[in-house]
Amino acid sequence: MRYEEFTIEGRNAVIEAFRSGKPIDKLFVLDGCQDGPIMTIKREAKKHDTLIKYVTKERLDQMSETGKHQGVIAYAAAYQYAQVEDILKAAREKNEDPFIFLLDNIEDPHNLGAIIRTANLAGAHGVIIPKNRAAGLTAVVARTSAGALNYTPVARVTNLAKTMEELKKEGIWFVCADMGGTSMYKLNLTGPIGLVIGNEGEGVGRLVKEKCDMVASIPMKGDIDSLNASVAAGVLAYEIVRQRMK
Amino acid sequence: MRYEEFTIEGRNAVIEAFRSGKPIDKLFVLDGCQDGPIMTIKREAKKHDTLIKYVTKERLDQMSETGKHQGVIAYAAAYQYAQVEDILKAAREKNEDPFIFLLDNIEDPHNLGAIIRTANLAGAHGVIIPKNRAAGLTAVVARTSAGALNYTPVARVTNLAKTMEELKKEGIWFVCADMGGTSMYKLNLTGPIGLVIGNEGEGVGRLVKEKCDMVASIPMKGDIDSLNASVAAGVLAYEIVRQRMK
Repeated sequence: MRYEEFTIEGRNAVIEAFRSGKPIDKLFVLDGCQDGPIMTIKREAKKHDTLIKYVTKERLDQMSETGKHQGVIAYAAAYQYAQVEDILKAAREKNEDPFIFLLDNIEDPHNLGAIIRTANLAGAHGVIIPKNRAAGLTAVVARTSAGALNYTPVARVTNLAKTMEELKKEGIWFVCADMGGTSMYKLNLTGPIGLVIGNEGEGVGRLVKEKCDMVASIPMKGDIDSLNASVAAGVLAYEIVRQRMK
Repeated sequence: MRYEEFTIEGRNAVIEAFRSGKPIDKLFVLDGCQDGPIMTIKREAKKHDTLIKYVTKERLDQMSETGKHQGVIAYAAAYQYAQVEDILKAAREKNEDPFIFLLDNIEDPHNLGAIIRTANLAGAHGVIIPKNRAAGLTAVVARTSAGALNYTPVARVTNLAKTMEELKKEGIWFVCADMGGTSMYKLNLTGPIGLVIGNEGEGVGRLVKEKCDMVASIPMKGDIDSLNASVAAGVLAYEIVRQRMK
């Protein structure tokens, strides 16, 4: 399941990567470039739902390791992504109610790694992340996950809210962490559950929040606003663990 | 209470910094250097209990920003340290049982910052860190604490085990997180409490562990060994919060 992380540069190399099915996290294309090979690459990217970023030549030159990027650089994932179905299957195989982490745009790879690590130890069956904006499974994520990426499946979806809608049909309830919610100690967090963690700065997005059945708040007794995203995920995950153990 | 973080280079500048009472986190001295001014600096460092590291000329040249280190470079703290008494006083003023975090050699400044952030939000009255090895209050720590350093006092002590001994006379009980302990859900974590968090790689040191009244374990349901140190601190701190709220 493990891939080396790598940067792929140049038109043929990038087209080849797409066609061989390598998981590409992000694609950087020279802004304004419209010729044939570039159009082919963009088509492949759309087919694979890869995020395209249009950047200046200076930016590409900076990112380039070979100096021969020909207007296109791709970042391949260090790990292969799982499917949402794999996560549900893992729960079925253990004969447990599904327990899934859903990360609404965690951007810091250290946070992503720490959260995957927590998901593994809290006994969650997998982690779902969105394709857009969020950090992908880079080498930094693999390292900060302390090996958890070898065990805990991570699925990447185009639309988190839509995936939640589908998971509701499987009987899963969703709880997100946000201010102004009910104290997590007062909620019933047992049964099949999806724990939704918001972006570091902006919290949970509106569309995703609307799909949540419960909004949990962590009691805040101090002077500042919020916990670090990976700490908040840990605190909530272990409240779920506590309630499930009873 | 805020200081700019800075590197102080050169003999007179470093002597002046010590004499003016600036909080120096670490002192780097050219190995083998024994002349008068260097001996004066070493005396000042001992007087202020500052950790001295003996390094090669190459290392100093690398660290130097001015190129004129004259065999000595000091790292000043970004924030001023509090005293342990300030932490106890904060608890008395709020008319609360003391709740203190003790960090047994947290080395990663991101973890230290996240833990100070958690301490603030969990309603702890302060954080105690050891002088040796551990990360000090650098600019990275200030940033990752998300402002908590402006509110939560951080004291730095020479010997954590000795400080625990003294705090026991104040009626404080100590709980550390370690494998093989009692599940945290089964311990009584109310009353005056010190939460001890161990080093990222090695956990809690033997001498410190011997001073602990309870060893708590976080239930681990996964495949890997341990949570990230700042996540573990958050999970334990909020179990204390939950029990105190009941």
